Amino acid sequence: MASSGSKESAANNPGLHTPPQVTKGYFMQQTCFPIKDPKISLDFYSRVLGMSIDVAEMKFTLYFMGYEDVSKALSDPIDRTVWTFSKPATIELTHNWGTESDPEFKGYHPGNSEPLGFGHIGITVDDTFKAYERFASLGVEFAKTPEDGFAFIKDPDGY
Amino acid sequence: MASSGSKESAANNPGLHTPPQVTKGYFMQQTCFPIKDPKISLDFYSRVLGMSIDVAEMKFTLYFMGYEDVSKALSDPIDRTVWTFSKPATIELTHNWGTESDPEFKGYHPGNSEPLGFGHIGITVDDTFKAYERFASLGVEFAKTPEDGFAFIKDPDGY
Repeated sequence: MASSGSKESAANNPGLHTPPQVTKGYFMQQTCFPIKDPKISLDFYSRVLGMSIDVAEMKFTLYFMGYEDVSKALSDPIDRTVWTFSKPATIELTHNWGTESDPEFKGYHPGNSEPLGFGHIGITVDDTFKAYERFASLGVEFAKTPEDGFAFIKDPDGY
Repeated sequence: MASSGSKESAANNPGLHTPPQVTKGYFMQQTCFPIKDPKISLDFYSRVLGMSIDVAEMKFTLYFMGYEDVSKALSDPIDRTVWTFSKPATIELTHNWGTESDPEFKGYHPGNSEPLGFGHIGITVDDTFKAYERFASLGVEFAKTPEDGFAFIKDPDGY
Protein backbone atom coordinates (compact mmCIF):
# COMPACT_ATOMS: atom_id res chain seq x y z
CA MET A 1 0.00 0.00 0.00
CA ALA A 2 1.28 3.47 -0.80
CA SER A 3 2.14 6.08 1.80
CA SER A 4 -0.70 7.81 3.62
CA GLY A 5 -2.10 10.84 1.87
CA SER A 6 -1.46 9.59 -1.67
CA LYS A 7 -4.33 8.63 -3.95
CA GLU A 8 -3.42 5.01 -3.21
CA SER A 9 -3.68 5.39 0.59
CA ALA A 10 -6.28 3.48 2.58
CA ALA A 11 -7.63 6.78 3.87
CA ASN A 12 -8.49 7.81 0.32
CA ASN A 13 -9.88 4.41 -0.69
CA PRO A 14 -12.60 3.13 1.63
CA GLY A 15 -12.63 -0.65 1.62
CA LEU A 16 -8.92 -0.97 0.81
CA HIS A 17 -6.84 -3.20 3.09
CA THR A 18 -3.17 -4.04 3.29
CA PRO A 19 -2.87 -7.39 1.47
CA PRO A 20 -2.84 -10.21 4.04
CA GLN A 21 0.22 -12.39 4.48
CA VAL A 22 -1.78 -15.48 3.50
CA THR A 23 -2.11 -14.42 -0.14
CA LYS A 24 1.64 -13.94 -0.73
CA GLY A 25 2.48 -16.05 -3.74
CA TYR A 26 -0.88 -15.60 -5.47
CA PHE A 27 -0.62 -14.31 -9.02
CA MET A 28 -2.96 -13.37 -11.80
CA GLN A 29 -2.69 -16.27 -14.18
CA GLN A 30 -5.39 -15.84 -16.79
CA THR A 31 -8.25 -13.92 -18.33
CA CYS A 32 -10.84 -16.12 -20.01
CA PHE A 33 -13.38 -15.48 -22.70
CA PRO A 34 -15.13 -17.72 -25.18
CA ILE A 35 -14.47 -17.55 -28.92
CA LYS A 36 -16.51 -18.66 -31.90
CA ASP A 37 -13.85 -19.96 -34.29
CA PRO A 38 -10.33 -20.90 -33.17
CA LYS A 39 -8.92 -20.79 -36.71
CA ILE A 40 -9.74 -17.09 -36.89
CA SER A 41 -8.84 -16.29 -33.26
CA LEU A 42 -5.51 -18.16 -33.28
CA ASP A 43 -4.54 -16.22 -36.38
CA PHE A 44 -5.40 -12.95 -34.60
CA TYR A 45 -3.66 -13.69 -31.29
CA SER A 46 -0.52 -15.19 -32.85
CA ARG A 47 0.03 -13.30 -36.12
CA VAL A 48 -1.45 -9.93 -35.14
CA LEU A 49 -0.77 -9.75 -31.39
CA GLY A 50 2.31 -12.01 -31.38
CA MET A 51 1.30 -14.46 -28.64
CA SER A 52 2.31 -18.11 -28.35
CA ILE A 53 0.08 -20.99 -27.40
CA ASP A 54 -0.71 -23.86 -25.08
CA VAL A 55 -3.68 -26.12 -25.59
CA ALA A 56 -5.99 -28.12 -23.31
CA GLU A 57 -8.92 -30.14 -24.64
CA MET A 58 -12.03 -31.54 -22.91
CA LYS A 59 -15.48 -31.18 -24.53
CA PHE A 60 -14.10 -27.85 -25.51
CA THR A 61 -10.64 -26.57 -26.28
CA LEU A 62 -8.80 -24.08 -24.12
CA TYR A 63 -6.14 -22.08 -25.94
CA PHE A 64 -3.79 -20.39 -23.51
CA MET A 65 -2.23 -17.46 -25.32
CA GLY A 66 0.55 -15.39 -23.84
CA TYR A 67 3.91 -13.68 -24.18
CA GLU A 68 6.02 -16.52 -22.81
CA ASP A 69 8.97 -18.18 -24.54
CA VAL A 70 7.39 -21.56 -25.27
CA SER A 71 10.71 -22.91 -26.48
CA LYS A 72 11.47 -23.18 -22.74
CA ALA A 73 8.35 -25.28 -22.11
CA LEU A 74 8.81 -28.95 -21.33
CA SER A 75 7.68 -31.46 -23.91
CA ASP A 76 6.03 -33.98 -21.59
CA PRO A 77 2.30 -33.14 -21.75
CA ILE A 78 1.83 -33.06 -17.97
CA ASP A 79 5.02 -31.05 -17.40
CA ARG A 80 3.86 -28.74 -20.16
CA THR A 81 0.49 -28.20 -18.47
CA VAL A 82 2.21 -27.46 -15.16
CA TRP A 83 4.46 -25.02 -17.01
CA THR A 84 1.50 -23.28 -18.64
CA PHE A 85 -0.28 -22.76 -15.33
CA SER A 86 2.89 -21.38 -13.77
CA LYS A 87 2.90 -18.49 -16.25
CA PRO A 88 1.22 -15.20 -15.42
CA ALA A 89 -0.92 -13.03 -17.65
CA THR A 90 -2.24 -15.53 -20.15
CA ILE A 91 -5.48 -15.33 -22.08
CA GLU A 92 -7.58 -18.47 -22.03
CA LEU A 93 -9.58 -18.65 -25.24
CA THR A 94 -12.41 -21.16 -24.77
CA HIS A 95 -13.69 -22.83 -27.91
CA ASN A 96 -16.95 -24.70 -27.30
CA TRP A 97 -16.89 -27.12 -30.20
CA GLY A 98 -19.22 -26.41 -33.08
CA THR A 99 -19.86 -22.67 -32.76
CA GLU A 100 -17.73 -21.90 -35.80
CA SER A 101 -20.07 -23.85 -38.10
CA ASP A 102 -23.40 -23.44 -36.29
CA PRO A 103 -25.71 -21.19 -38.35
CA GLU A 104 -27.85 -20.66 -35.24
CA PHE A 105 -24.90 -19.37 -33.21
CA LYS A 106 -25.35 -15.66 -32.55
CA GLY A 107 -21.81 -14.91 -31.36
CA TYR A 108 -20.55 -13.84 -27.94
CA HIS A 109 -21.31 -10.63 -26.10
CA PRO A 110 -18.13 -8.52 -25.79
CA GLY A 111 -19.50 -6.52 -22.84
CA ASN A 112 -19.04 -3.00 -24.28
CA SER A 113 -22.69 -2.61 -25.31
CA GLU A 114 -25.84 -3.33 -23.28
CA PRO A 115 -25.82 -5.23 -21.05
CA LEU A 116 -22.48 -3.66 -20.04
CA GLY A 117 -19.84 -5.89 -18.47
CA PHE A 118 -16.31 -6.96 -19.42
CA GLY A 119 -14.29 -4.04 -20.76
CA HIS A 120 -11.05 -5.08 -22.42
CA ILE A 121 -7.61 -6.54 -21.99
CA GLY A 122 -4.61 -4.23 -22.30
CA ILE A 123 -1.36 -5.00 -24.08
CA THR A 124 1.68 -2.78 -23.65
CA VAL A 125 3.53 -2.29 -26.93
CA ASP A 126 6.91 -0.77 -27.73
CA ASP A 127 5.57 2.01 -29.98
CA THR A 128 1.84 2.84 -30.02
CA PHE A 129 1.77 4.52 -33.43
CA LYS A 130 3.92 1.89 -35.12
CA ALA A 131 1.70 -0.79 -33.63
CA TYR A 132 -1.35 1.14 -34.84
CA GLU A 133 -0.02 1.33 -38.38
CA ARG A 134 0.83 -2.35 -38.38
CA PHE A 135 -2.57 -3.37 -37.01
CA ALA A 136 -4.28 -1.15 -39.60
CA SER A 137 -2.21 -2.73 -42.38
CA LEU A 138 -3.31 -6.17 -41.13
CA GLY A 139 -6.95 -5.17 -41.44
CA VAL A 140 -7.62 -5.02 -37.70
CA GLU A 141 -10.82 -3.22 -36.71
CA PHE A 142 -10.41 -0.26 -34.36
CA ALA A 143 -12.85 0.84 -31.68
CA LYS A 144 -10.53 3.78 -30.93
CA THR A 145 -7.51 5.07 -32.86
CA PRO A 146 -4.46 6.13 -30.82
CA GLU A 147 -4.69 9.97 -30.76
CA ASP A 148 -4.45 9.91 -26.95
CA GLY A 149 -1.58 7.42 -26.80
CA PHE A 150 -3.69 4.31 -26.62
CA ALA A 151 -6.01 2.52 -29.00
CA PHE A 152 -8.74 -0.10 -28.78
CA ILE A 153 -8.80 -2.91 -31.33
CA LYS A 154 -11.34 -5.69 -31.73
CA ASP A 155 -10.53 -9.36 -31.72
CA PRO A 156 -12.46 -11.69 -34.06
CA ASP A 157 -15.30 -12.12 -31.56
CA GLY A 158 -15.59 -8.38 -31.01
CA TYR A 159 -13.83 -8.25 -27.60
CA MET B 1 5.55 -22.46 -31.02
CA ALA B 2 5.88 -26.04 -29.81
CA SER B 3 7.47 -28.82 -31.83
CA SER B 4 5.58 -30.24 -34.80
CA GLY B 5 3.16 -33.02 -33.96
CA SER B 6 2.32 -31.74 -30.47
CA LYS B 7 -1.09 -30.34 -29.66
CA GLU B 8 0.53 -26.90 -29.78
CA SER B 9 1.92 -27.36 -33.31
CA ALA B 10 0.79 -25.16 -36.19
CA ALA B 11 -0.30 -28.31 -38.06
CA ASN B 12 -2.77 -29.08 -35.29
CA ASN B 13 -3.98 -25.50 -34.89
CA PRO B 14 -5.20 -23.92 -38.14
CA GLY B 15 -4.71 -20.19 -38.02
CA LEU B 16 -1.74 -20.35 -35.63
CA HIS B 17 1.42 -18.50 -36.67
CA THR B 18 4.88 -18.17 -35.20
CA PRO B 19 4.79 -14.84 -33.34
CA PRO B 20 6.33 -12.16 -35.54
CA GLN B 21 9.55 -10.42 -34.50
CA VAL B 22 7.77 -7.06 -34.43
CA THR B 23 5.71 -7.94 -31.35
CA LYS B 24 8.69 -8.90 -29.17
CA GLY B 25 8.41 -6.84 -26.03
CA TYR B 26 4.63 -6.75 -25.97
CA PHE B 27 3.09 -7.96 -22.74
CA MET B 28 -0.35 -8.48 -21.35
CA GLN B 29 -0.77 -5.58 -18.96
CA GLN B 30 -4.38 -5.54 -17.85
CA THR B 31 -7.85 -7.00 -17.79
CA CYS B 32 -10.59 -4.42 -17.36
CA PHE B 33 -14.12 -4.61 -16.12
CA PRO B 34 -16.47 -2.08 -14.58
CA ILE B 35 -17.58 -2.22 -10.96
CA LYS B 36 -20.57 -0.75 -9.18
CA ASP B 37 -19.09 0.26 -5.80
CA PRO B 38 -15.35 0.69 -5.21
CA LYS B 39 -15.68 0.49 -1.43
CA ILE B 40 -16.99 -3.05 -1.73
CA SER B 41 -14.70 -4.10 -4.60
CA LEU B 42 -11.51 -2.69 -3.06
CA ASP B 43 -12.29 -4.65 0.09
CA PHE B 44 -12.70 -7.83 -1.97
CA TYR B 45 -9.60 -7.43 -4.16
CA SER B 46 -7.31 -6.33 -1.32
CA ARG B 47 -8.52 -8.15 1.79
CA VAL B 48 -9.86 -11.34 0.16
CA LEU B 49 -7.62 -11.72 -2.91
CA GLY B 50 -4.59 -9.90 -1.50
CA MET B 51 -3.94 -7.44 -4.30
CA SER B 52 -2.41 -3.98 -4.00
CA ILE B 53 -3.55 -0.84 -5.75
CA ASP B 54 -2.82 2.03 -8.08
CA VAL B 55 -5.38 4.69 -8.87
CA ALA B 56 -6.13 6.92 -11.85
CA GLU B 57 -9.03 9.36 -11.92
CA MET B 58 -10.82 11.11 -14.80
CA LYS B 59 -14.65 11.28 -14.90
CA PHE B 60 -14.34 7.81 -13.51
CA THR B 61 -11.78 6.11 -11.31
CA LEU B 62 -9.53 3.31 -12.52
CA TYR B 63 -8.25 1.04 -9.77
CA PHE B 64 -5.32 -1.04 -10.96
CA MET B 65 -5.15 -4.10 -8.74
CA GLY B 66 -2.32 -6.59 -8.90
CA TYR B 67 0.27 -8.72 -7.16
CA GLU B 68 3.13 -6.24 -7.35
CA ASP B 69 5.21 -4.95 -4.45
CA VAL B 70 3.95 -1.37 -4.39
CA SER B 71 6.56 -0.44 -1.79
CA LYS B 72 8.91 -0.41 -4.79
CA ALA B 73 6.71 2.07 -6.66
CA LEU B 74 7.97 5.62 -7.02
CA SER B 75 6.17 8.37 -5.13
CA ASP B 76 6.09 11.00 -7.86
CA PRO B 77 2.61 10.69 -9.43
CA ILE B 78 3.86 10.55 -13.01
CA ASP B 79 6.66 8.10 -12.17
CA ARG B 80 4.09 6.06 -10.30
CA THR B 81 1.78 5.94 -13.32
CA VAL B 82 4.66 4.86 -15.54
CA TRP B 83 5.52 2.19 -12.96
CA THR B 84 1.93 0.94 -12.88
CA PHE B 85 1.73 0.56 -16.65
CA SER B 86 5.06 -1.30 -16.67
CA LYS B 87 3.57 -4.08 -14.54
CA PRO B 88 2.00 -7.11 -16.17
CA ALA B 89 -1.20 -8.88 -15.20
CA THR B 90 -3.13 -6.16 -13.45
CA ILE B 91 -6.88 -5.86 -13.15
CA GLU B 92 -8.29 -2.46 -14.04
CA LEU B 93 -11.47 -1.91 -12.05
CA THR B 94 -13.42 0.93 -13.63
CA HIS B 95 -15.73 2.86 -11.34
CA ASN B 96 -18.07 5.14 -13.25
CA TRP B 97 -18.98 7.63 -10.56
CA GLY B 98 -22.43 7.35 -9.03
CA THR B 99 -23.37 3.72 -9.73
CA GLU B 100 -22.92 2.76 -6.08
CA SER B 101 -25.73 5.08 -4.99
CA ASP B 102 -27.95 5.08 -8.09
CA PRO B 103 -31.20 3.23 -7.34
CA GLU B 104 -31.81 2.92 -11.10
CA PHE B 105 -28.46 1.17 -11.68
CA LYS B 106 -29.10 -2.46 -12.60
CA GLY B 107 -25.54 -3.75 -12.12
CA TYR B 108 -23.04 -5.08 -14.65
CA HIS B 109 -23.34 -8.23 -16.74
CA PRO B 110 -20.67 -10.76 -15.67
CA GLY B 111 -20.86 -12.66 -18.98
CA ASN B 112 -21.57 -16.14 -17.61
CA SER B 113 -25.31 -16.00 -18.30
CA GLU B 114 -27.10 -14.93 -21.48
CA PRO B 115 -25.84 -13.12 -23.42
CA LEU B 116 -22.65 -15.16 -22.90
CA GLY B 117 -19.31 -13.38 -23.06
CA PHE B 118 -16.45 -12.76 -20.62
CA GLY B 119 -15.66 -15.88 -18.61
CA HIS B 120 -13.39 -15.24 -15.65
CA ILE B 121 -9.95 -14.27 -14.46
CA GLY B 122 -7.74 -16.95 -12.94
CA ILE B 123 -5.55 -16.59 -9.88
CA THR B 124 -2.98 -19.20 -8.98
CA VAL B 125 -2.85 -19.86 -5.23
CA ASP B 126 -0.42 -21.81 -3.09
CA ASP B 127 -3.00 -24.31 -1.75
CA THR B 128 -6.43 -24.61 -3.37
CA PHE B 129 -8.24 -26.16 -0.42
CA LYS B 130 -6.72 -23.79 2.13
CA ALA B 131 -7.65 -20.87 -0.11
CA TYR B 132 -11.17 -22.31 -0.43
CA GLU B 133 -11.58 -22.57 3.33
CA ARG B 134 -10.31 -19.05 3.81
CA PHE B 135 -12.59 -17.62 1.12
CA ALA B 136 -15.54 -19.50 2.62
CA SER B 137 -14.73 -18.14 6.08
CA LEU B 138 -14.66 -14.63 4.57
CA GLY B 139 -18.18 -15.10 3.21
CA VAL B 140 -17.13 -15.27 -0.44
CA GLU B 141 -19.78 -16.64 -2.80
CA PHE B 142 -18.78 -19.70 -4.83
CA ALA B 143 -19.91 -20.54 -8.35
CA LYS B 144 -17.92 -23.81 -8.07
CA THR B 145 -16.29 -25.44 -5.05
CA PRO B 146 -12.83 -26.97 -5.58
CA GLU B 147 -13.52 -30.73 -5.85
CA ASP B 148 -11.60 -30.82 -9.15
CA GLY B 149 -8.65 -28.77 -7.93
CA PHE B 150 -10.02 -25.40 -8.92
CA ALA B 151 -12.89 -23.23 -7.78
CA PHE B 152 -14.85 -20.28 -9.08
CA ILE B 153 -15.65 -17.41 -6.75
CA LYS B 154 -17.69 -14.30 -7.43
CA ASP B 155 -16.45 -10.77 -6.95
CA PRO B 156 -18.87 -8.13 -5.63
CA ASP B 157 -20.24 -7.39 -9.14
CA GLY B 158 -20.74 -11.08 -9.89
CA TYR B 159 -17.68 -11.56 -12.14
